[in-house]
Amino acid sequence: MTASQAAPQPTPERIFNTLNAYQNTAALKTAIELDIFTKIGEGANQAAAIAAKTGAAERGVRILCDYLTILEFLVKNGNSYALTPESALFLDRRSPANLTSMMGFLGRREELTRHFETLTEAVRKGGCASEDGDNTKPKPGFWVAFARSMAPLMVPAAAFLAELLEARAGRPWKVLDIAAGHGMFGITLARANPRAQIVALDWEPVLEVAQENARAAGLADRYTLRPGSAFETEMGEGYDIVLLTNFLHHFDPETCEKMLRRVHAALRPGGRAVTLEFIPNEDRVSPPIPAAFSLIMLASTDAGDAYTAPELERMFENTGFRNSTLHSVPGMPQRVMVSEKAS
Amino acid sequence: MTASQAAPQPTPERIFNTLNAYQNTAALKTAIELDIFTKIGEGANQAAAIAAKTGAAERGVRILCDYLTILEFLVKNGNSYALTPESALFLDRRSPANLTSMMGFLGRREELTRHFETLTEAVRKGGCASEDGDNTKPKPGFWVAFARSMAPLMVPAAAFLAELLEARAGRPWKVLDIAAGHGMFGITLARANPRAQIVALDWEPVLEVAQENARAAGLADRYTLRPGSAFETEMGEGYDIVLLTNFLHHFDPETCEKMLRRVHAALRPGGRAVTLEFIPNEDRVSPPIPAAFSLIMLASTDAGDAYTAPELERMFENTGFRNSTLHSVPGMPQRVMVSEKAS
Repeated sequence: MTASQAAPQPTPERIFNTLNAYQNTAALKTAIELDIFTKIGEGANQAAAIAAKTGAAERGVRILCDYLTILEFLVKNGNSYALTPESALFLDRRSPANLTSMMGFLGRREELTRHFETLTEAVRKGGCASEDGDNTKPKPGFWVAFARSMAPLMVPAAAFLAELLEARAGRPWKVLDIAAGHGMFGITLARANPRAQIVALDWEPVLEVAQENARAAGLADRYTLRPGSAFETEMGEGYDIVLLTNFLHHFDPETCEKMLRRVHAALRPGGRAVTLEFIPNEDRVSPPIPAAFSLIMLASTDAGDAYTAPELERMFENTGFRNSTLHSVPGMPQRVMVSEKAS
Repeated sequence: MTASQAAPQPTPERIFNTLNAYQNTAALKTAIELDIFTKIGEGANQAAAIAAKTGAAERGVRILCDYLTILEFLVKNGNSYALTPESALFLDRRSPANLTSMMGFLGRREELTRHFETLTEAVRKGGCASEDGDNTKPKPGFWVAFARSMAPLMVPAAAFLAELLEARAGRPWKVLDIAAGHGMFGITLARANPRAQIVALDWEPVLEVAQENARAAGLADRYTLRPGSAFETEMGEGYDIVLLTNFLHHFDPETCEKMLRRVHAALRPGGRAVTLEFIPNEDRVSPPIPAAFSLIMLASTDAGDAYTAPELERMFENTGFRNSTLHSVPGMPQRVMVSEKAS
């Protein structure tokens, strides 16, 4: 057999890289903490200059920036580093689209990253290894961190929702934003539709963040709060739209259906439930980000999951909804399902 | 401007994936701990069967195996999982080439992974954030873990060295294996060359592992030990070959040269120093694995680095060596430098 006929020999590179992948997370966290991307964006492009601007050691900066180049967050020419278009948009703090705050939620040890230290136990058990996997119970610190950290990532999805739901048509809307968090979904609808009234539901300390954001958007008079558990708080009724963003994945299908019955009762006839979710294909291994999201739910919740579109559709059918339609959010890994209450 | 003229819009996917990359490490560690790859290799190919064989929950196994499919360690057809050629070779414990032990070293918290929790401080300082960054001092627990865990990964490199140095020619050889660890480099040379005598130098508890391996290879009578610090222990003299495998990266150039002077003194005229290292190109950002190795040295040592070939060559020239030649190890990220002492 000649060399050209031989199958390519497997190498251990992927295994080695995966066992060290936690180092990628650490490198990006460190670069954000030291604000390396902003300094480079401002013109410091060699290790010595970046070190001077960040108060770090030149050797440390050189090795970190080389690593960030390998990860494709920077480009290197000679000894000069520059931002990629992606880093300039999302990692330079001067950019209005910067996502650096995301680390405050995705890197949170207490409620998130530490659950991966006990992943083996979670696989054995089939859910979160600790007692913290029940998301019907309050975790206000975590959800305040979510509200403070994740709003920028949701901007494109919120804008897409406003367009999809034809907010600009200006119909009088009563909107319930369940687990509102930062409130950006309801706020974006209200900015696009001057006749929209938003009711935000979440744990009380979380609603303070949503209310701040609503006030900053000049919406204080169209923004009301319902603090408490989404499963127990009186939600009101006659809503045109109920938003369920990044919510259902925390629960098992039975608990999801319990919520959807409440949503159904709160909607007016002809009203719509709008679900934003990580929705994998039915193979559950594509697209990568929505499919991979399942593991976060395994590690950190008792029985949550990234549900497929047919699974979600079934939950909506079981609870009285009809005409569920599925929509991709351009440039984002989430998808949207819109489901109607019969009129 | 039409859509087709627009530049592709950057997406936050790489940032999201990198902030979550630690989850990839956790997933592979868990799969190895539960021995998922071996069970699939043995024929359990659906979640329920794998769960039964591993004592884990079906839901946990399903989500983990989907995740391993996304990472390309498994393939999925319908609800059945199968090993990739790479996983069959390297992750099924029944394979003679299995590398599952590697986790025992690469996953070790005390001396390795925890240093990435303080990476920001390491970048500020320009070296290991804790007091543990001086590798001239003993860390026997760590190096015993190295010796017990990393031997399988070194098999191809050791075989390559035996070929490169023409061990089979059977010349009488006196070989010094510095920081011998598992001993596999010296042992492989001695198996190929029945006239080779190996002297292994390392911390005493580490040498017990090397000696076990030498005995198992039937080499007890050609294998002698020199326990202690590589910088202080009397090394002997008249060596034909001195092995420096995965060693120099732990130290600054001055300390490396101190060692190379000792090596030079220990070699016979015409003898060769043989260095196995992660050697990046001069751009320091390629190839990815050797270049990325620098960050591990930043995080865990005071002043170690992945040196480029010209940097290594300069150290050898400064200490009396000549004719350094560079060799790639087929299928592995390391390279070999062979340097001569004038005869």
